[in-house]
Amino acid sequence: MVHFADALFEAVGRVGNPICVGIDPRPEDLPPGFLGRYPGDRSGVAQALGDFGAAVIEAVGSLVPAVKFQAAFYEVYGPEGFLALHQTARKARDLGLIVIMDGKRNDIGSTAEAYAKAYLGRAAVGDRFEPSWSVDALTVNPYLGSDGIAPFVRVAAEEGKGLFILDRTSNASAREFQDLVVDGRPLYRHVADRIADWAAPHRGESGYSLVGAVVGATYPAELLELRRALPGVPFLVPGYGAQGGTAADVAPAFDPQGLGALVNNSRGITFAYGKPDARDRFGDDWQAAVVAAVGAMAYDLAQHTPAGRLRPDQADG
Amino acid sequence: MVHFADALFEAVGRVGNPICVGIDPRPEDLPPGFLGRYPGDRSGVAQALGDFGAAVIEAVGSLVPAVKFQAAFYEVYGPEGFLALHQTARKARDLGLIVIMDGKRNDIGSTAEAYAKAYLGRAAVGDRFEPSWSVDALTVNPYLGSDGIAPFVRVAAEEGKGLFILDRTSNASAREFQDLVVDGRPLYRHVADRIADWAAPHRGESGYSLVGAVVGATYPAELLELRRALPGVPFLVPGYGAQGGTAADVAPAFDPQGLGALVNNSRGITFAYGKPDARDRFGDDWQAAVVAAVGAMAYDLAQHTPAGRLRPDQADG
Repeated sequence: MVHFADALFEAVGRVGNPICVGIDPRPEDLPPGFLGRYPGDRSGVAQALGDFGAAVIEAVGSLVPAVKFQAAFYEVYGPEGFLALHQTARKARDLGLIVIMDGKRNDIGSTAEAYAKAYLGRAAVGDRFEPSWSVDALTVNPYLGSDGIAPFVRVAAEEGKGLFILDRTSNASAREFQDLVVDGRPLYRHVADRIADWAAPHRGESGYSLVGAVVGATYPAELLELRRALPGVPFLVPGYGAQGGTAADVAPAFDPQGLGALVNNSRGITFAYGKPDARDRFGDDWQAAVVAAVGAMAYDLAQHTPAGRLRPDQADG
Repeated sequence: MVHFADALFEAVGRVGNPICVGIDPRPEDLPPGFLGRYPGDRSGVAQALGDFGAAVIEAVGSLVPAVKFQAAFYEVYGPEGFLALHQTARKARDLGLIVIMDGKRNDIGSTAEAYAKAYLGRAAVGDRFEPSWSVDALTVNPYLGSDGIAPFVRVAAEEGKGLFILDRTSNASAREFQDLVVDGRPLYRHVADRIADWAAPHRGESGYSLVGAVVGATYPAELLELRRALPGVPFLVPGYGAQGGTAADVAPAFDPQGLGALVNNSRGITFAYGKPDARDRFGDDWQAAVVAAVGAMAYDLAQHTPAGRLRPDQADG
């Protein structure tokens, strides 16, 4: 069984960039004419979202190490949405991508264990145990403490999977609770202390743990502080692009070899065809706009972060 | 449109108790022979969980005001599990129960809005907006701050729905972060301050807001403290029964009229047939054990809490 972090950073090294393509499909953002090809009911919309995600994955499958599904955008369409999410996640995994389910799940005891089994483990079916979801890692909220984290860590360790625990998020109001000062240090540092504890017993050959952290790109000083506090903890970094984070902002997330972090970009890639000049350059070929956006982001990260060491040919300014 | 809290406490007054029956189905806990009647695949197990929940709801539908579904136990079975959850929630709503989805969802901005639309609002389908889920309220995690809460409050206000925000949870490790001291007060008090802010503009005729809080039964001192800090905020109180909380422990959650709180009991009701003496009393009639457990809990709460005022006939010791 391959350790999650080893698989993740092997994939990063293989493709030469640390990009996670976020798939957050909303009907109103689909390319012109896309939605009109489906029945005008809940099942039709869900299938359109699924097919859009699948088409994004086909476009980026050989270019990036990982994709991240925002569960909310599928849950809006009820069981039909969940079915589309399930099919799309399987397709991503079949193409060899690392699949992150961004569900921010959290609960305690046997309920946390049920979420862990759902996304990282196996479900009891007859006298067997079968995986329900084609997912490699799950995002998890820490507010409930160790009871709410331990089941995820245990199941992930058993199954070669990973988790990313919210620590310092990318949104403006992250400050409201995460920055409250306890014993002279903000809450997110106390959460980081526990993340370090949870991560330490579970490092792979890469030196990185299956326990990762979500640290936003929009607060570069905190990102640097947390990178120093959490060696060996993979970072999932949202906030690049649409939320305002730059390549320079995410640079502190990486180790000197360009490993240790995935930088997520959702709308900036999947809806790149909606940018002002995209129509002139790509016409109706929205997947070409997706590929170009991945290329531009890879180049940007190579120029301004240690991820340039992954592909020295791209790092020469 | 009826305000969520008005509908909730009307239902509490009508049935005369504040019990929320938690439906957390696990295959290994189903009554003897139940699972064997279904195909031995993922879809069969999911349908068994759905039918079990439906049978619980039939048994308790006229006895309690509310049921709460633990999403995790359905998500374990993937899209098929979600379908069973969807059908069971609809059945509960059709029977007039207040339906709480215990999903502990959380995210920021447009993603939080997607979760809010999913469970409390409507999804865009063609040129219409349709509800996807038959749910009256959702549990929500506050770690991301206002950005992560405002979309839920806005959608709930538009749709006559409610939310319960995690504040002080019932698990042992709740202390790890929720009790950290900031400016002389534990974090959960700071979270409570924000819950009060979020709740204040959204009170119904009952005086209670559509913004509620989750406060565990297992920490009675904190429950009393939070009840005083959060007048007008409905409490969803887990931890009675299996987790060790007693009726006396939950008493502080109520106002003098016996309103203001729902007390959840999951395994203690739905798996009551598994108790040592249940087989002698009820034989194979597991639903009779469920009904008896509801009656015993209603009596216990009437004896030891202000909920006795709801049904004065039960309150005489």
